Order: sequence, then structure tokens, then C-alpha cells
Amino acid sequence: MLSPLISELIDALRILPGVGPKSAQRMALHLLERQRPGGLRLTKALESALHRVEHCRDCRMLTEQAVCRLCQDGSRDDGALCVVESPMDVIALEQSGCFRGRYFVLLGRLSPLDGIGPQELGLPQLISRLRDQPSITELIIATNATVEGEATAHYLREATRALPLTVSRIGHGVPMGGELEFVDGNTLTHALSGRRPVP
Amino acid sequence: MLSPLISELIDALRILPGVGPKSAQRMALHLLERQRPGGLRLTKALESALHRVEHCRDCRMLTEQAVCRLCQDGSRDDGALCVVESPMDVIALEQSGCFRGRYFVLLGRLSPLDGIGPQELGLPQLISRLRDQPSITELIIATNATVEGEATAHYLREATRALPLTVSRIGHGVPMGGELEFVDGNTLTHALSGRRPVP
Repeated sequence: MLSPLISELIDALRILPGVGPKSAQRMALHLLERQRPGGLRLTKALESALHRVEHCRDCRMLTEQAVCRLCQDGSRDDGALCVVESPMDVIALEQSGCFRGRYFVLLGRLSPLDGIGPQELGLPQLISRLRDQPSITELIIATNATVEGEATAHYLREATRALPLTVSRIGHGVPMGGELEFVDGNTLTHALSGRRPVP
Repeated sequence: MLSPLISELIDALRILPGVGPKSAQRMALHLLERQRPGGLRLTKALESALHRVEHCRDCRMLTEQAVCRLCQDGSRDDGALCVVESPMDVIALEQSGCFRGRYFVLLGRLSPLDGIGPQELGLPQLISRLRDQPSITELIIATNATVEGEATAHYLREATRALPLTVSRIGHGVPMGGELEFVDGNTLTHALSGRRPVP
């Protein structure tokens, strides 16, 4: 019943994460009925970003600059490098404000069945960076606590064994505010084996 | 911390209904990281739709054609005309499959404080259509059951009093599947005053 251009817009909106047929329809009609200037702004923003955003030469974060803001920032600690899976993880860590070092974004995790190996994750680039920058003294592996994330962390640990580095993995256990009663067994096992002496 | 083009994309995505800062971020990174072809398709779809979709000459539904599909459809009943507030309402009625007549979309509701009067709602166009098409014998007013929707319905009833038409308002009451216990008093009042004899 809808005209072809509107149907195509609804279909195209469904590629957005978390957008089903009903929300896509609402979005399309909202843009066409009430938000044409906003829609034009979105078209332009999307076009520019898709054409110009690439990855940072040093850390592989998404950016339209050759080197991203975080890598350019001279006030950050060159001694620690944190390895994460995705740009979203960098944003989450930055928003927590708990880390002032440098990042390296894998843009994925080891997944041989999908053809994602060390090459695709930029590990040769990471290793040579660790070798060439003696200022880096600690490598923090912050891949996800999933099977692939753990496998990636393990691979990274082995690949950096020859380098004069402290290698650490972020802590796993009961999340803050979490109650033991509702935490799964696997997490409890990690929480218990990762226990620390109380001073 | 994000580069200007990415930040602008995130801001632009927030004009979509139901999209807050967190979802906008997730959408932007998803498009840039994993869905560039889909993103380009969205850019094109949005651009074409925004530039070419206008309103149907006859019923004011959104369409890029001069006359929309529903108005062109010769198999529909010319005897009944249903007046709704927005294109979304046409879609909802069409999806229910309960109405086979023609539509007229007000693209709003009477709201003098916002400068929306009969002119903006296309009421002169509607009245002359009702006058010029004697085939239309019933006018169904399906504006929303809100204060403005009711006021619009009332205005429409008065404005069409001189025409040889059956004018009806869609039924209000307890929604199907609804339980009396959870229905508000205003709805119950309408349900009671709109009671019908059981044959």
C-alpha cells in the first residue's frame, strides 16, 4: 500500500541495530512527515562519515583523521597499552574515566571458522608496535569475557611472551552492585579463583 | 574523544524517534564498522524519499506519485470516506483489513495554539471533495480519541452538516482483550454510553 520509495526507506532503516519493521515504519514516516530538515542532515552526516571515516593508523580506532584524537593526545600515559575488541569498548572505557593510557582496537576477535585470524586483527602491527616502542611497559588485555574473547586473550599472551612486558588481563567476577544469588556459576568460579587478600 | 564526523553522525541519528544517545552511538558504530553497504543504501533511500515523496493530490497520503496507490485502486469502495490524522493511521487501518473505502489524511489535528486550523488540515479540500463526489455517502471520522482529536471530529461534523451524508465516528470503549479492571474511567464512561442492544 505504501509507495516504492517509502517502502525502500523502511527496508533500508531496518539495517540499524535494534530496529524492527514497526520502528522502521515509524522512523520513515516521522522523517517524511515532521523531520525533513533533520532527515537531510542525517543523509549528509551519513554520507560524509561513510566516505571519510577510516581507521586510525596507530590504534585502529574509527576516525576520519590519519591518527585519532586519543593517539594524538600528548597528556596520556605512554606506558600502558589496552587491547580491546571494538571501538565501542574504547568508548566504554573512556566514559568510565579509569584508564589514561593508549589503546589498540582489534576490530574483532579470533574466529577461525569465520576466517578471522591474527592477520585480520592486526596482531603483527600490534607486536611490532610493542617491540618498537620500549616506553610501553604494560599490556592490558581487555577482550570480552566470551569464549572467543578468552581465546584471543590467550593467543595474545603467548604471542607477547618474548617481549619485556607486564601482561595483564582485566578482572572477572561479580559485577559491582551484583548479588551472588543472581550471578551465574561460571562468573562465581572466576570470582573465587580471582580472589585477592584483604590487607 | 570521537572524531567530528562520527559525533555529527551520532547527533544526526538522534532525530529518529525513540533513539537516545546510547542507541545513536551503537547505530553509528554499527554502520561504520559492519554495515557500510547498508549505510550507503540508507543514504540513497533517505535522499530519494526526502526529495521526491510529497502528498497525494486527492487524499494527502505520503507518496512520490501524484495520486497514491489507494486512490488509484479501482477495486475500492467509493461510497465511504474515512478521515484520519496521519499516514500511520492509514497503515494501521489497512493492516487490520477492516476498511475497503477511501481515505483523507488531515496531516494533523486542530490545534489553534500551534497555528493549526482548518486550512492546514485541508478541510476546504475535503469539503469540496465531499460536495463534488456524490458517490460518497458515508463519512467516517477516525481521528484519535484525544482532546484535539475529539475537537477535530466535532468541527468536521459541524462543517459537513449541510451535506447529504451519513457521518459517523469510530467506536470508543474497552479494547478487545482488555479487562474492565484495568481500563480507565473515561474509557468506561464511553463504553457505557456507547452500549448497543444485544440481538
